[in-house]
Amino acid sequence: MKKISDSTISRLSTYYRTLTNLIENGVETVSSDEIAEINNITSAQVRKDLSFFGSFGKRGLGYKTKDLREEIAKILGLKKKWNIALVGVGNIGRALIDYDEFKKQGFIFKALFDKDPQKIGQEIKGLRIHDIEDACYVAKEKEIEIAIIAVPAKNAQAVVDSLVQCGIRAFLNFAPITIKVPENVMVKNENMSIELEALSYYLTQSK
Amino acid sequence: MKKISDSTISRLSTYYRTLTNLIENGVETVSSDEIAEINNITSAQVRKDLSFFGSFGKRGLGYKTKDLREEIAKILGLKKKWNIALVGVGNIGRALIDYDEFKKQGFIFKALFDKDPQKIGQEIKGLRIHDIEDACYVAKEKEIEIAIIAVPAKNAQAVVDSLVQCGIRAFLNFAPITIKVPENVMVKNENMSIELEALSYYLTQSK
Repeated sequence: MKKISDSTISRLSTYYRTLTNLIENGVETVSSDEIAEINNITSAQVRKDLSFFGSFGKRGLGYKTKDLREEIAKILGLKKKWNIALVGVGNIGRALIDYDEFKKQGFIFKALFDKDPQKIGQEIKGLRIHDIEDACYVAKEKEIEIAIIAVPAKNAQAVVDSLVQCGIRAFLNFAPITIKVPENVMVKNENMSIELEALSYYLTQSK
Repeated sequence: MKKISDSTISRLSTYYRTLTNLIENGVETVSSDEIAEINNITSAQVRKDLSFFGSFGKRGLGYKTKDLREEIAKILGLKKKWNIALVGVGNIGRALIDYDEFKKQGFIFKALFDKDPQKIGQEIKGLRIHDIEDACYVAKEKEIEIAIIAVPAKNAQAVVDSLVQCGIRAFLNFAPITIKVPENVMVKNENMSIELEALSYYLTQSK
């Protein structure tokens, strides 16, 4: 596995969206300058990010939007559907179930878990809420590949520990806490106040 | 305004959380090694990030947790409360209103906006949902400093444009689209599928 920085991967996701929009608008070719301008970065950055994975464009001619989107989809693993479990069916969890972007990118909820007896057995969008105690069994049956953790901070580490035991290797964590996992497991954190703090920093420093 | 990278600012937010947890657990001093280990990064990175803003620790003695937390709070602008508006009271918007982390960090919802006549006039947690058409007037009255954009992608740019006209200079955008703003305005994007794509990249490349 090549060692590519997290920020390069995150920008590839951004380029993927840019290309999707361009294709929807009937645009057939695009230059690195144009991709850069749409995303408020430099074209050198765009070319550098893409160069890690091969040479996709033709000098002076730019990139074919459909071909480049296809290549980025392959790199990011978006040519297949991913089976997702949601752990914690609170407000954030429910918003995520309704978040259309996930399905659009191929991330499909296949299992919901909670520990609240009031919620267990209920259905949301045709998916039953299972007891978190049954997570291993259900995760195997549904071939879950990625788990989204939307439980309170104090429960998050224990929940992840038990899912790692069941063989799940990728987690998107919404709990405001750093989760420890073994080396062959990946956790990405979605802490929404971190972005707000970048804004408060900006407003404070630019007064 | 010093030019500090976005990733440094985002790590300061992470250190701030680490220090808060340590203080809650009665820890009085901490080394850069310990901060680094908790967050799965190098101690050199921790020291470099902090060095942009002054010298806070004592060689060999580490940092006093309370003092360092206080300094980071000042840098990030977390010593004051920030008045937040939410634009778009759909599923994501409602989850955000209930997201306790925001209030904990001093980000307080003061105004809600939507364009759906069914929603306008309703109250959530004591806050009235106003017509987006009245945004300028209400934003001034409530002294809104940051707006969270949780409207459909196709409406997001127009909503931001009009709020920029009203003098709002900081936006947290949940719509899956790149928003264009003037130079003295900042937009941070919260696209939750980008983190999922980093996980699918990881699972794909490490097979």
